[in-house]
This record gives sequence, C-alpha cells and structure tokens, in this order.
Amino acid sequence: MIYIGLDIGGTNIKGAFVTKEGKITHRFGFRVDYSKTQEEIISLIGDSIKSALKEKEIEKEEVGGIGIGCPGSINSKTGICEYSNNLNWFDLPIVAMIEKATGIKAKISNDANVAMLGEAKFGVGKKYHNLVLLTLGTGVGGGLYLNDQLYEGEEGKGAELGHMVIDPDGKECTCGMKGCFEAYASATALMKMTQEAMKKHKDSKMWEMVKGDITKANGITSFECAKLGDEAAKEVVAKYEDYLAFGIINYCNIFRPQAIILGGGVSSQKEYLTDEIEKRLKEKNYGFKRTPSVKVLVSNLGNDAGVLGAAALVM
Amino acid sequence: MIYIGLDIGGTNIKGAFVTKEGKITHRFGFRVDYSKTQEEIISLIGDSIKSALKEKEIEKEEVGGIGIGCPGSINSKTGICEYSNNLNWFDLPIVAMIEKATGIKAKISNDANVAMLGEAKFGVGKKYHNLVLLTLGTGVGGGLYLNDQLYEGEEGKGAELGHMVIDPDGKECTCGMKGCFEAYASATALMKMTQEAMKKHKDSKMWEMVKGDITKANGITSFECAKLGDEAAKEVVAKYEDYLAFGIINYCNIFRPQAIILGGGVSSQKEYLTDEIEKRLKEKNYGFKRTPSVKVLVSNLGNDAGVLGAAALVM
Repeated sequence: MIYIGLDIGGTNIKGAFVTKEGKITHRFGFRVDYSKTQEEIISLIGDSIKSALKEKEIEKEEVGGIGIGCPGSINSKTGICEYSNNLNWFDLPIVAMIEKATGIKAKISNDANVAMLGEAKFGVGKKYHNLVLLTLGTGVGGGLYLNDQLYEGEEGKGAELGHMVIDPDGKECTCGMKGCFEAYASATALMKMTQEAMKKHKDSKMWEMVKGDITKANGITSFECAKLGDEAAKEVVAKYEDYLAFGIINYCNIFRPQAIILGGGVSSQKEYLTDEIEKRLKEKNYGFKRTPSVKVLVSNLGNDAGVLGAAALVM
Repeated sequence: MIYIGLDIGGTNIKGAFVTKEGKITHRFGFRVDYSKTQEEIISLIGDSIKSALKEKEIEKEEVGGIGIGCPGSINSKTGICEYSNNLNWFDLPIVAMIEKATGIKAKISNDANVAMLGEAKFGVGKKYHNLVLLTLGTGVGGGLYLNDQLYEGEEGKGAELGHMVIDPDGKECTCGMKGCFEAYASATALMKMTQEAMKKHKDSKMWEMVKGDITKANGITSFECAKLGDEAAKEVVAKYEDYLAFGIINYCNIFRPQAIILGGGVSSQKEYLTDEIEKRLKEKNYGFKRTPSVKVLVSNLGNDAGVLGAAALVM
C-alpha cells in the first residue's frame, strides 16, 4: 500500500508516493501557471496523479488515499479551499474534484497543519506525543499535535497560533487586530525591525550586508550581522528573541508540550536561535518548580515536510 | 461495572459510584480535618471507599477504577500531588496509596481537567468534540477536550489557561508574571475592579448591596447592581466582559472549539454574561468570514462535575 502526498504551493505542485514508514518511493509534479482557472489546475493535478500511477504500474486499489496540503482557508470537513490569497482560489471543492478525477479517497488540510503532521510522524517530532509547530515566515503559521493526533479544530480552522493577541495596544496585524503574535514573531516583523534599526544606525554592518539597499534587508540580515558582532544587529536579534519567547511561553502554559518545533525562514538560524529561546523559557517558566521544561527544535524535513505530512493525513 | 469518582476539595472529600452512562448510584464522603497528616487523610479515603463498597455489596472486581480530581500541581503521570496550596499537601503519592489501600487501579488529574471531562462526557458539553473550559473563580482554571479526548499536556500540567499573558505591561499575577489572563478574568480580578469603582463612585448602588462594607464586595456585586441600572456597576461589568472576551478570542483562534464552557462563581450570571461574550466574539472573530462561530456555555453539572469527571478518568 502506498499513500499519495500533494503539496500545493505558490509556484509548484509537488506530489509523492509515500510508504507507511515515510519513505518517498516516487516523486511527480509540475510548475503551476496560476493564470489558468482553478478548475484547470485541479484537472492537471488529477492527470499528473493518474500518469504517475500508470508510470509506476500502481493500481488505484493499492493506494491508501490522497492527502493534500494547501495554503489558505481550508475547510477540512468539506474539502473545500474557501479562500487562498497566494493561489487566488475561491470556493474550490478540491477533495471532491480530485476524488472524481482519480477514483481515490482524498483529504485536505492547511499547509501548517500538514507540516506539523509530517514533522510529528517522520521528522524531528517523531518520538514525541505533544507538539506545537510555529512557522516563522511571511506570517506565523501554527500546527498542533496533541495526544498523538493532529488537532485542527472545527472545520480545520484552529491552530491560528499567529493570531493570539499578546499586546492589546500593540502593532497592527494583517488580520485587522492589534498586537497579534504574528506582528512580532514573523520573518516580516523581523525584517521591519531590522529596517528600523538600520535607519537609526547608519554605521551598522547591516548596511554592508544589503549593499546599501535597505529593501534587501530580510529575516536573516540581523542574525548574520549579529554573528559578526554588530551591536545594532545584536539588539534587533535579542528583541526579536524576546518577542518570540514571550509567545512561546504562553504556548508552553497552554499546552505544556514536549517540544515546540520552529519552521519557516527564520528557523534556518537553528541552535543560534533555539538556544536563546530555551534560555528565556527556563527563566520565565510558569509556576511550580517541577513543571517539565519544553524543548525548542527546528523542523528537519525541509522541502519534503509538505508531501510527507499530506500523505500522513490519509494513513 | 461501576466507576468510582473522588472529588478532593478544601472542605469535603466527595465520592460517588458512577455508571458508564454517568448516573450516580451511590454517594459517600466526609468533611476533612486538614490538621490531620496527609497520609492519615489518604488512609481515611481508602477506608471510606472500602466501607462504601461493603455497604453496597460490590466486589472490587466489579469496579472499573478509581478516578481522582485534586486541586494543585498534580503529576498525572506519576499520580503524585506535588503541591496543593489549598490542602497543604506536598509530594503525596495519592494514586499509589489509594491503589494499595483498595486493590483497585486509580488515576488522578487536577480539578479543572476533571471538571472539563465531566462536562464533556455528561454535562453541557456532551454533544461536542472540541471544548475549552474556563473556571472563573479565585483564579482562572482551564480544561481542554480536543478530538473527543481530555488533553492534559506533559505530566498533566498543560491547560494553564489562566496564565496566558495578554498584556506584557499588565496587572501583576500571583504566578510572578505580569498581564496573565487570570489577573483580568478571575472572580478575584472582578472583585478588585468592583472595589476600585466603589471608591470612585460613592453614590453607586454597590455600596448598598454590601451594606457599606467594601470588603464584602465580590464577583457578583457588580453584576447584581448593573441589573438594577447602576451606571458604575454597568461600567465594571462591561470592562470585565471586554477582558474576558479578549482572552476567549485568543482561545477561539488557538483551538477553534465548538464551545467555550464557563464555570466557577462568575458563571452563575449565565446568559446575562454569555450573551455579551458571544456578541464580542462575533464582532472580533478572526479573519475569514466563514470561520465557525464559537458558543459560550455555562457548566451545568454543578457540584457533581467533580465526581462525574473523576469517574470518567477511568472509563
């Protein structure tokens, strides 16, 4: 029995045949032209699955299901992509269309949930039962793996971990509220903090790093310059780590997971970031002395987290 | 088969024989003298279970287990009450002692978790799969029922829902942090807000309500006077509801549960409180238009939530 994982992204649609053990036995997919209608794209996905099965001489009876990870507001109950800003999709009944095209049962969830499941089943979270995933990218995505299960909430719309308000008079968030965790802990937030610091500190190494073009500053700039000893960059990094730890401490108290897994662009800083966060967690851990400490890990499936997690949806 | 539920409280220890369907077939228990040693009290609990079984002519083979709810820092993995301020207990291996005394398997969890399980299995949360419980009392206790299971976190120390920081420069919390949800949404917080308002508004009906003694103001005073049309009281209530809704909105985004269940003293205001909270949730619901709305309910098992939930731990 194999399981098909589909990772729908802003540029590529990636597919994989995955074994129960998380081994990828075949890959397929294509670069998407989002000027095509949403129905045309789904039709292409159906075709690509069918031709991959044909190529590997696999009958549909040998397929345990098709799992799909998709960015945006996904209703995992109805199988509909209600809205995806990145893909420009609206009210698209992906699951029903894929099932019709292939004759194989399908399931869908949003990309952060799927990444969580991938890390829990086959990645850095493999030996744990209770996990929280935070993806630090354009926004802050969230995934929850609790009591050995993915927890999605109603219609798959829980785990919006970037939209916990941590300061009622805080920074504006893209969601319309003020003070969301995302407005402090996303790569976008870090980039803004970096640019503000650059404007204040004209002698900072960060200017060299971006060759004088402040618009090139990103979520990595401050970290790289902090490592070179630049004071302004160190300040940005420390402030960012304070914010990130602040939200993570809340999630420790709410979930008391075994580990928090960080993904997304900023997590490429690995131990340089996680050591600092763990230090802050220890300093400000809630209450009782013997409250179990929480590890801070970095996702390790990389580009395969999507297809592996998607396949795990139907295992 | 019957299940034994034990509700350990600051004044009484209540026990019940409970059927799989949540029917209480027998009650027992006693008023506790906390000047006795913790070991003596556990020994008395063992005796009371054994004599209740004898009285009802039930063999221990007919008992599915003993579930125990206890306030404080309970390690549900080891079965030890590590610390209970209310009971003045330290490092007490309750589960092992009860098992030894009775020859029956036992399990323990903290009182809020147990109340959550009781409401989910037999109370107002019966038809739901994903629930969050908040007890608005001296502090704010929390319970989580996710994917049809109690979620306790590592060692049973998750669901500290009162200790989500919602304002980094906010009110001091008993836990040592600033701005915890508990410092705004507990009955204690409401009492303090009430007293502050009374000091400012000497003509408020709240003074009559407490017969001129401000120390008699409690979590009910402002609600009762608001219902009589008192402006100062109405302001207190509206502010409290804003705070409570603010934290609940975070929990909606984190969990997207079907319902939030309120328990504890303040929840006695029922629809007068929950209608206002639901209104605020609708106004500030996260993001996408079709995000499912979250019901706000009041726990309805009353004094039996403890024994029923405790029994459900071993079902």
